[in-house]
Amino acid sequence: MCQLKSDNPSFVLHGVEDVKIENRPIPELENDEVLVEVAKTGICGSDVHYLQHGKIGSFVVKEPMCLGHESSGKVVKLGPKAAGLKVGQRVALEPGMGCRTCDMCKGGLYELCPNMTFAATPPYIYGTLCRYYKLVADMLHPIPDAVSDEDGAMMEPLSVAVHSLSKLAKCKSGDNVVIFGAGPVGLLCMAVAKALGAARIVAVDIQQERLDFAKSYAATDVFLPPKKNDGEDMDVYAERISAEILAALDIPAIGSGALNICIDASGAAVCIATGLHLLRPDGTFVQVGMGAPTIPIPMFAIVTKQLRVLGSFRYGQGDYPLAISLVSRGLVDLKPLVTHRYKFQDAREAFDITKAGKDKDGKPVIKVIIDPPQ
Amino acid sequence: MCQLKSDNPSFVLHGVEDVKIENRPIPELENDEVLVEVAKTGICGSDVHYLQHGKIGSFVVKEPMCLGHESSGKVVKLGPKAAGLKVGQRVALEPGMGCRTCDMCKGGLYELCPNMTFAATPPYIYGTLCRYYKLVADMLHPIPDAVSDEDGAMMEPLSVAVHSLSKLAKCKSGDNVVIFGAGPVGLLCMAVAKALGAARIVAVDIQQERLDFAKSYAATDVFLPPKKNDGEDMDVYAERISAEILAALDIPAIGSGALNICIDASGAAVCIATGLHLLRPDGTFVQVGMGAPTIPIPMFAIVTKQLRVLGSFRYGQGDYPLAISLVSRGLVDLKPLVTHRYKFQDAREAFDITKAGKDKDGKPVIKVIIDPPQ
Amino acid sequence: MCQLKSDNPSFVLHGVEDVKIENRPIPELENDEVLVEVAKTGICGSDVHYLQHGKIGSFVVKEPMCLGHESSGKVVKLGPKAAGLKVGQRVALEPGMGCRTCDMCKGGLYELCPNMTFAATPPYIYGTLCRYYKLVADMLHPIPDAVSDEDGAMMEPLSVAVHSLSKLAKCKSGDNVVIFGAGPVGLLCMAVAKALGAARIVAVDIQQERLDFAKSYAATDVFLPPKKNDGEDMDVYAERISAEILAALDIPAIGSGALNICIDASGAAVCIATGLHLLRPDGTFVQVGMGAPTIPIPMFAIVTKQLRVLGSFRYGQGDYPLAISLVSRGLVDLKPLVTHRYKFQDAREAFDITKAGKDKDGKPVIKVIIDPPQ
Amino acid sequence: MCQLKSDNPSFVLHGVEDVKIENRPIPELENDEVLVEVAKTGICGSDVHYLQHGKIGSFVVKEPMCLGHESSGKVVKLGPKAAGLKVGQRVALEPGMGCRTCDMCKGGLYELCPNMTFAATPPYIYGTLCRYYKLVADMLHPIPDAVSDEDGAMMEPLSVAVHSLSKLAKCKSGDNVVIFGAGPVGLLCMAVAKALGAARIVAVDIQQERLDFAKSYAATDVFLPPKKNDGEDMDVYAERISAEILAALDIPAIGSGALNICIDASGAAVCIATGLHLLRPDGTFVQVGMGAPTIPIPMFAIVTKQLRVLGSFRYGQGDYPLAISLVSRGLVDLKPLVTHRYKFQDAREAFDITKAGKDKDGKPVIKVIIDPPQ
Repeated sequence: MCQLKSDNPSFVLHGVEDVKIENRPIPELENDEVLVEVAKTGICGSDVHYLQHGKIGSFVVKEPMCLGHESSGKVVKLGPKAAGLKVGQRVALEPGMGCRTCDMCKGGLYELCPNMTFAATPPYIYGTLCRYYKLVADMLHPIPDAVSDEDGAMMEPLSVAVHSLSKLAKCKSGDNVVIFGAGPVGLLCMAVAKALGAARIVAVDIQQERLDFAKSYAATDVFLPPKKNDGEDMDVYAERISAEILAALDIPAIGSGALNICIDASGAAVCIATGLHLLRPDGTFVQVGMGAPTIPIPMFAIVTKQLRVLGSFRYGQGDYPLAISLVSRGLVDLKPLVTHRYKFQDAREAFDITKAGKDKDGKPVIKVIIDPPQ
Repeated sequence: MCQLKSDNPSFVLHGVEDVKIENRPIPELENDEVLVEVAKTGICGSDVHYLQHGKIGSFVVKEPMCLGHESSGKVVKLGPKAAGLKVGQRVALEPGMGCRTCDMCKGGLYELCPNMTFAATPPYIYGTLCRYYKLVADMLHPIPDAVSDEDGAMMEPLSVAVHSLSKLAKCKSGDNVVIFGAGPVGLLCMAVAKALGAARIVAVDIQQERLDFAKSYAATDVFLPPKKNDGEDMDVYAERISAEILAALDIPAIGSGALNICIDASGAAVCIATGLHLLRPDGTFVQVGMGAPTIPIPMFAIVTKQLRVLGSFRYGQGDYPLAISLVSRGLVDLKPLVTHRYKFQDAREAFDITKAGKDKDGKPVIKVIIDPPQ
Repeated sequence: MCQLKSDNPSFVLHGVEDVKIENRPIPELENDEVLVEVAKTGICGSDVHYLQHGKIGSFVVKEPMCLGHESSGKVVKLGPKAAGLKVGQRVALEPGMGCRTCDMCKGGLYELCPNMTFAATPPYIYGTLCRYYKLVADMLHPIPDAVSDEDGAMMEPLSVAVHSLSKLAKCKSGDNVVIFGAGPVGLLCMAVAKALGAARIVAVDIQQERLDFAKSYAATDVFLPPKKNDGEDMDVYAERISAEILAALDIPAIGSGALNICIDASGAAVCIATGLHLLRPDGTFVQVGMGAPTIPIPMFAIVTKQLRVLGSFRYGQGDYPLAISLVSRGLVDLKPLVTHRYKFQDAREAFDITKAGKDKDGKPVIKVIIDPPQ
Repeated sequence: MCQLKSDNPSFVLHGVEDVKIENRPIPELENDEVLVEVAKTGICGSDVHYLQHGKIGSFVVKEPMCLGHESSGKVVKLGPKAAGLKVGQRVALEPGMGCRTCDMCKGGLYELCPNMTFAATPPYIYGTLCRYYKLVADMLHPIPDAVSDEDGAMMEPLSVAVHSLSKLAKCKSGDNVVIFGAGPVGLLCMAVAKALGAARIVAVDIQQERLDFAKSYAATDVFLPPKKNDGEDMDVYAERISAEILAALDIPAIGSGALNICIDASGAAVCIATGLHLLRPDGTFVQVGMGAPTIPIPMFAIVTKQLRVLGSFRYGQGDYPLAISLVSRGLVDLKPLVTHRYKFQDAREAFDITKAGKDKDGKPVIKVIIDPPQ
């Protein structure tokens, strides 16, 4: 083991809009646990949501909880049975761990474990916005030199996109993909679709500047939908936009070149409906991330085109390794997505601009990365 | 060939609520076409819908169209290139034929062919409620002696259930299935689930007498949901019912014994929402048949449980053969479902009671079968 | 916990053909381990192989090892973190446990874990032919009253068949299956094929009496192959037999009714070759159990018919539960397979007749079950 | 239609080693047939085999047969029902057509149709080494300007590789692939593996110069196996080489980075055995092309690692479009593979050097392309 520092400064949520930087004990290690010194941490919408609301759905913060779950770091100490890692090794932290014994874990779907332990998610009160964080060895993924610490922190949201595109949508070379929402998750989905060999990657968003970035980053085509007419039924509107997108981009509705995968990273009902109308028969729709709990969908389109609608939850076996592989081989470039960086003591401000979507100068925020405590 | 009769009495729709029995020419045969003398024909909700409305969605009846598409018959004449069938052979008629050259047809999904020719579906003006109907040889499925002519006619709706349960939901031995709607399609889905070895088959319907029949027929468990409270949100209600169903039937939400397949044969929004709440993580939901075009669904449940929602459209390669196999091996018994029989000249009355769901004596209608013209 | 007996009589292998019944310590429990009092234990070919040779392939017995891995029992004590089980509960013992952290375990394929701990398999020196055996909680599968202790012991070989037929061959209703070898594993494969709804189950063996039993048990058809002609090439012979089987059983080589699944439970090269010739295009061949390490196969048939050849190794996630479900629902009857029973102190004799395949009276041995120590 | 020339010079096989260039009638068109003026034609090993032996397996040339099946061309005339193509359009010719009505064709596997009509394959006596060839419209795949006529001719062998890697092996980003044989098919498999995002592509061959080319073309690693020791058992040798390959290339046998796909394009027994030993557990082996009809394989490795062994036969639905997409997007470069070009009247010489593998100057032959008749 290395020489450890004596403290563990942590960014702890005490209540709605109430966070403090405070010292917490350095975790003790058991069995195959490993102590990591955190290098870089990204801020995610869910972190912001806990800060604002103190809960997400049925996950309610009842005790002070350290925030943060998108991190890279360095191994500094190994538990008594930890294998496969060395002190000093740089790693990306996969922040959730299943129980390993339920049907889901043993069936290869640990992301669905009902007893999941996940960083900064109640009732687990530990997060990665701190100096020292412990995790079991097999959830630490070594990163090569070609992958920076910032890249390493970004493996978490990138794995969300890998899970949706590669594992669930089974996106492969030559596929034609439409992606709704050009925020961080949507952009990462575009990057993954490109890396997996998609032929057309159509980005749809309601902000032209986000589309401009998408086009420069990974989309082959972009589309800014026209507004809904007064009194126009939502589904009629969705069907109209879908026809306009096909026409504008010269994509057939059926047959060669038609859109066979749709990813919704917006959570907006009108996007979901439009996406279902856009897909060719036998197409696949993946919902990544969540919007309103109840969404009206055109079931008629799902039935007559025999579509597959898949929910995508976090990431699972093999997603982190593929994410790291894509970045280390230069197939995904994460650097353009990091728009802002903050020191640990200024972390609160990182939350504020992530929530606002723009910084004080009006510059759009995609991803904010926070330095480790000094 | 056999000696043919000289006429072809046909039950022809001329406009909304306007049907006539009239003589039509006996079809001429080309290539691999085969002439069938129709034996028995079942009445389907879609036949009734055309009679009432003159259209289904974008399929609008513009010319007089012979109704009927659920039929069995006997081969009476072979086209010049028809192979694999003999005159006199008893067959079930698969009423739709793809173009054979598009991506869907060549990819094994002819049910999604955009150029499908389907009996009694505009713009195709031929249906099977007549004496003689022609079809290409490979869409005629021989039936053994153990399968009656009525059974043969019922292969069409049975194939819908086979398509949903076997091909799409991939239902197999030990699965636990919940089915919403105990009408003809729902009951056939229960029968197929039972034949495929499902361990629990839970029927949910809002009519106790339909549930009683389901229990005597193929369901292992039935549930009559309590009413929605005044002002209760639909999704809150759906979640409440789903919890009550799990409790009443002593089925866990997760793990061994949990429901892994849900079939909705009701088209009702509240059923669909309840079904999605009932499914265990990694479960499969299949929508068979259609209700309202736009349905509000709990997307949150789809995402957090990573569900698969699949549309099921008609039937495709291999579905008729499996349907016939299940009946001929005694694994599905279709006889209890035929509640009413009519002569050809009384076919109009068959439509009326199918629409009403009860006959004049108040006896519930499940399936009505019509004799051939005399 | 119950009152435990003070000793743990164990059937221990000390060297080739050298076994002793001796007392071993009662295992201490940690974490989620559970102590089981063994009820019934079946003898498997691999147990006999260790007794005869002291090794199987690279698994070499270097220390005294208790034999036995096919057992049922009763929970008598729970480790400090064991959940989901109660003292007194009757269980089937799944004898292998993966490391839970490697790619295979986390990917849903724990049967392929390179660090598997498996009863009576070096370097693990504990087996189930004893009074008390410990296992982690999730590898103990509760059995209902309808499943006897003998059935419970037979869940191990039945799970081998379930793994091959259900998980790998994906056998489902209407499939046509040919199975080579009518020994214990082959018979269990036939029983599972029948339970999963196979339409034809063709048994091939070189002993008429085994075929007679297979026909009375689970096969729909049986075939005793004619002998190889002098000087006949093995593959020519295999192709000839395959044509004779198809002709004798009136099964087409291609199309409806053709054989789409072949299971080899014989390990004999000529059976494997014949099976590959018998399969229809796009068919699936599963090798369960092993014969000679190197087998000449007709690769031409594999390529031109685009076959899938799958190795089947033990059993994995979900196989025990399905095996128990099939027996408890009466879809598989294990009783006819238990031909002999022995007391614990006579276990050695059980090995001898299993090896011989016949008892002293010449009666064929299928499965031998051993009572617990008294 | 364009102005057609009046003759149809054709390269016709009359018997073993007996070919003549002779005029044949210009084909008449029916239904959806299309007349193509052939642009470029590649020579394949099977063409050479017919020339040398007059047969391949059970396909025996009984009447004069025009050779050639790897071609591009230009549409010059449309049959009365041909749709989706225009006169003048440049196309790649997919040379086989299924019956469209059997289970295989309707199930999405037309490559396995027992009634396949395939260019230059008895009993079909027409091949593409001629001026005018007719084919149904849906087997002609338009090629964009970025794809040359030579590229278009190469789509046939490229589709063989696409079929093996993409459709059967399901090769995707990050996979680690080993390919035996660096001839034309093996090289195309490497190119496709690279295009699909494989991380490691290991080429194994017994000729250093072929490996050198493979390394410069698409392989990430190459390996020249050491010779078999005198008296060494073939499987012992295979296992030894597999260990040496893993060691030399620093690839683990199991876990991250291990080889999960093996393609054999050599047909040599020792390669197949080595490949099976090289694969990680749960790996996929694909046999493309054929060597000796009977091959000894290490079944022990297949079983204990639960491998999938798949035969790959020609190509099917979607393979040509993906091949064209890969080339038109610059992901596969076919130009380096065309080592020799001949005029139509010198076609015989093209066969000779293809057979020899080297031209008169000793330069290795990969692919030979023949010009159209003048």
